Amino acid sequence: MPSASETRAAGPVDTRRSPWARLTTLELDAVRLTGGFWGARQAINRDAALPHGLRMLETAGNLDNLRIAAGRTRGPYRGPVFMDSDVYKWLEAAAYEGANARPNDLASDITSLIELIAAAQQPDGYLNSYYQVARPGERWSDFPNGHELYCAGHLIQAALALRRARGDGRLLDIARRFADHLVGTFGPGTRVATPGHPEIEMALVELYRETRVRAYLDLALFFVDQRGHGWLGPGRYNSSAHYQDRVPVREAVELEGHAVRAQYLAIGIADLFLETGEQALLDALTRQWHDLVTHKLYVTGAVGARHLAESVAQPFELPNELAYGETCAAIANVMWNWRMLLATGQARYAELMERALYNAVLSGMSLDGERYFYVNPLASNGRDEYLSRGGCRRRDWHLVACCPPNLMRLFASLGHYVGTRDSSGLQIHQYAPARIATEIAPGRRVALRTESGYPWEGNIRLVVDEGTEAPWTLALRAPSESADVIVRVNGTGAAAEPDPAGYLRLLRTWRPGDTVEMTWSISPRCVEGHPWIESTRDCVAIERGPFVYCLEQADHPSARVADLAIDATAPLTSERDPDALGGVTTVRATGSQLDTSSWDGKPLYRTVGSAPPAMRCPTQLIAIPYYAWANREQGPMRVWIPKA
Amino acid sequence: MPSASETRAAGPVDTRRSPWARLTTLELDAVRLTGGFWGARQAINRDAALPHGLRMLETAGNLDNLRIAAGRTRGPYRGPVFMDSDVYKWLEAAAYEGANARPNDLASDITSLIELIAAAQQPDGYLNSYYQVARPGERWSDFPNGHELYCAGHLIQAALALRRARGDGRLLDIARRFADHLVGTFGPGTRVATPGHPEIEMALVELYRETRVRAYLDLALFFVDQRGHGWLGPGRYNSSAHYQDRVPVREAVELEGHAVRAQYLAIGIADLFLETGEQALLDALTRQWHDLVTHKLYVTGAVGARHLAESVAQPFELPNELAYGETCAAIANVMWNWRMLLATGQARYAELMERALYNAVLSGMSLDGERYFYVNPLASNGRDEYLSRGGCRRRDWHLVACCPPNLMRLFASLGHYVGTRDSSGLQIHQYAPARIATEIAPGRRVALRTESGYPWEGNIRLVVDEGTEAPWTLALRAPSESADVIVRVNGTGAAAEPDPAGYLRLLRTWRPGDTVEMTWSISPRCVEGHPWIESTRDCVAIERGPFVYCLEQADHPSARVADLAIDATAPLTSERDPDALGGVTTVRATGSQLDTSSWDGKPLYRTVGSAPPAMRCPTQLIAIPYYAWANREQGPMRVWIPKA
Repeated sequence: MPSASETRAAGPVDTRRSPWARLTTLELDAVRLTGGFWGARQAINRDAALPHGLRMLETAGNLDNLRIAAGRTRGPYRGPVFMDSDVYKWLEAAAYEGANARPNDLASDITSLIELIAAAQQPDGYLNSYYQVARPGERWSDFPNGHELYCAGHLIQAALALRRARGDGRLLDIARRFADHLVGTFGPGTRVATPGHPEIEMALVELYRETRVRAYLDLALFFVDQRGHGWLGPGRYNSSAHYQDRVPVREAVELEGHAVRAQYLAIGIADLFLETGEQALLDALTRQWHDLVTHKLYVTGAVGARHLAESVAQPFELPNELAYGETCAAIANVMWNWRMLLATGQARYAELMERALYNAVLSGMSLDGERYFYVNPLASNGRDEYLSRGGCRRRDWHLVACCPPNLMRLFASLGHYVGTRDSSGLQIHQYAPARIATEIAPGRRVALRTESGYPWEGNIRLVVDEGTEAPWTLALRAPSESADVIVRVNGTGAAAEPDPAGYLRLLRTWRPGDTVEMTWSISPRCVEGHPWIESTRDCVAIERGPFVYCLEQADHPSARVADLAIDATAPLTSERDPDALGGVTTVRATGSQLDTSSWDGKPLYRTVGSAPPAMRCPTQLIAIPYYAWANREQGPMRVWIPKA
Repeated sequence: MPSASETRAAGPVDTRRSPWARLTTLELDAVRLTGGFWGARQAINRDAALPHGLRMLETAGNLDNLRIAAGRTRGPYRGPVFMDSDVYKWLEAAAYEGANARPNDLASDITSLIELIAAAQQPDGYLNSYYQVARPGERWSDFPNGHELYCAGHLIQAALALRRARGDGRLLDIARRFADHLVGTFGPGTRVATPGHPEIEMALVELYRETRVRAYLDLALFFVDQRGHGWLGPGRYNSSAHYQDRVPVREAVELEGHAVRAQYLAIGIADLFLETGEQALLDALTRQWHDLVTHKLYVTGAVGARHLAESVAQPFELPNELAYGETCAAIANVMWNWRMLLATGQARYAELMERALYNAVLSGMSLDGERYFYVNPLASNGRDEYLSRGGCRRRDWHLVACCPPNLMRLFASLGHYVGTRDSSGLQIHQYAPARIATEIAPGRRVALRTESGYPWEGNIRLVVDEGTEAPWTLALRAPSESADVIVRVNGTGAAAEPDPAGYLRLLRTWRPGDTVEMTWSISPRCVEGHPWIESTRDCVAIERGPFVYCLEQADHPSARVADLAIDATAPLTSERDPDALGGVTTVRATGSQLDTSSWDGKPLYRTVGSAPPAMRCPTQLIAIPYYAWANREQGPMRVWIPKA
């Protein structure tokens, strides 16, 4: 029975009618970020990244490809096969951005793109500029790498965003024609297929959520069910694992293969669980999530160690400099954890979202919003790359430009991930200054304002603007890194013991003006990695709040970053630097600088004792948040610091 | 002025008329290995690997591809584009093997293959089964990855081997027709080109050495001169560095891109220097060699850290488990260093040959000769790979089977690399039981027998069988790992100070029966890596003689290899185990086993101090030579051992 609030538009994920969702997503306009750390990122996303992105789509040929497909111009197709998806992701970002602040800013650009896409669509609903322009007559001939269903999925997501955020159903009409074409083309009675790059699954489930057309849900499940029997073939890497096609999804134990594909599939499967309640799906995802966090995750929340095939590597194989850590894989990590949170209500998923967001995701975009990392290593020697997509400089755009518009759509829709509701009340998962207004049950409207110094300071203040007649529970995710959480309701101390799910639950009849204050200490800490990770052995990383820190050459003019070591037993201190890197809190540590001159020009290996021990000279280490590296002069960086 | 000995056939490299060679290669029959470590490997190579290889060439389709090209059968082309080269490398191995021991064993197989290749050759001399069968009319259309010139190079090398080792010129006639076709096709006046995978360069220089046809040398130089201007395009990795096409060869500073391509090019350039004396070529190679040994070399002599594009990585980026270390790249390392040694007379090149041979090369073949590693990591968790060519089990053969026949041809021709001569006399670079007979000048025949316990024991005894009337210098490469070298001539101590090039030089008028004994201590030692290599930090590796050692699970039934640590200050002991792994000396070390149970099932990272320190329990470590790993039950392995 839909509540009244269901007539309000949803955000990227809508679990309001999902029978198996423990937590219900809030309406798109229910959370508005009001400044603070993420508010500032959203402003840069809107003012710099989105306009830049549109220019790049023009320059790189994405728009021309569609124009050629639409018969508006002539020329060769340009770029990789999935160029259309970047346009769709940009549109999704523009749609959600419109919901945040200035709804009409991008209206004419959006309309032009929708008209272009409409013109490019074929009469039967099919739409893919690569196959239409460069491979006419060859549609559906390359499931492993053709990316047709991947592009279709992004079209659907953009269309839903425009419908939900702007009430604009034009792209949704286009997307549904394509989706209906897919429903008519693939399925048990027609044609067996599954995509080499998942994405269509989550999109079809979301389209089902919007339209309640069961065929979309069924098709998503059909695609998922085909996997695990090698149907996609060994492909260029001679491995079904690359495509998550080695093991049927319900039997999966490991997260394996291409890191984005693996997680996009997990997202779609989580969405299917939320609608179908099939426990075997959630069990498989839970196993894979454990495999990730106990074997394969970087401390930054990055996923996927290998440059080869952009893949998740072996357990504990997490090199720093050679890390791949594609920005899209960190975004996928956020999206997957969001659905695990919705399915289970467990704070651990919100915690991992936070870790990925503030570190491996955020590092993907420069402070000015116009340069992007595809690869996010945890150490760099400060040299650029001749080969691979790595290096120590963010680029204007990439040949494979999946990451920049993926960042844009995530940043534009960040408010979506702040809170949820359930039958008990409201849950706050991420701390940021915001306005939150929703109905926790039909007719029971609640509204809050939050103020917070987070992520730099450990405090949040919630003021109730609207309560209800009956009691309900305000659940706050307990800060994971601190033992000294203090909660006050209207100035009076309240129990600050989290429940087993990781939330502090405050049950009362909330009245306008009621105030909750939660404070906790945020102080820098050293973390260590599992002893089996060779790249973190005898090292520590500095964390403070949600941030992983790093040492960058720019802060150490008289030492080489590679020579620095830390005294992990000495206290760390914090210092607010409002002028540096857009305003950050730096961390100072006591350390030393190793004299490695005895190695200069020498072979890499020598007999122990054949040279005098290296001298160390005391020095102060200055650490900055990892996300902010590579925004000053080019130079070395490292997250993991050897212990002196 | 050719000496009389020049009428005797040469080995794989013939510098007898190379004006810029400091050292002259010996004739093919000048060195015969007589048992010992490498003699045993040669026997396995002959008795197991070569017959196995021929079966695999049949099974994998290499021979069928040639049969189809020859019109003898029908069917689709199978395998990657360079399948012919595996046939040629096998033929080269068979040719050199015939020179060692049983010249007629393989004669009928060789004849069949030559006849097949002859039948496949096109009237104009062109020969490549892939382009003839699968891409008719498209020859010379894909220089970056088509491998036509690569295959041509291997054809030439095989042809030279058959000519030199068996006096069989049939394949050389075929190869020369192809080479003449190349000379007519490419060059300053005709067509500009350069191959994406070097190999033709060294082959053309060697063909010039055999035939004295200057056009072959000129074409090799032409191909080399074209590089460094991006002519090959960015390719699938979007990088000219992958193809060594980023920087003109004379300006190269770094070893970069695909590890085999980079070194095969270096080999060809070294060969060109030996003939032309162009100093800029040698200078560039010397810079790249320094870049390798000071920045990019594994302790095993493996080259190329990255699975992606099989490439050399950034300086100090040498992960253990993620190491690529293709067997062919280690073989290329041997071949490159051999030419650097011939060009300079410096022992450091012979030392690196030794390191690569006994470790990164040898690990590529199982003890039984019938299973092969493509990827040679320095650590393994004992799990197999779903993706990439790595893993912890050698395979019967590979889809890309360049490595197995490359090992076969190297092992079959190992005697070639034992010694050289120059105007002063004879140089011994590698220690093994052997008979050596050559002319150090026209008419001045010398012959020696060597006996040696090397590589397990530090001794070599040389007995002169034939001397000359005039004095000459016997130069012995000074063992690099030992300071206590003792040299006795006819029982009397002789000076044991190496010259600046790294050789002990004994000048006298040698008489039959004269005996030289060199002894040195071989005891296990711990080596450490440059502090900037994250994968070796706070670790040591054990070496003994030329061998790098490793810990393998099979020797540690009660501990996990990943939990083992070493007391690097405690003495290491050696123990001869004639029954283990074909007979090895194991090394015992004092160590401990870390209790990592507090991490079980936990996230990979935790705050320092949030768990009690892990306990250590003393244990004995048993190390085996690295090359011998993965010949028992599947399990973890590590070369670098954390210090307790």
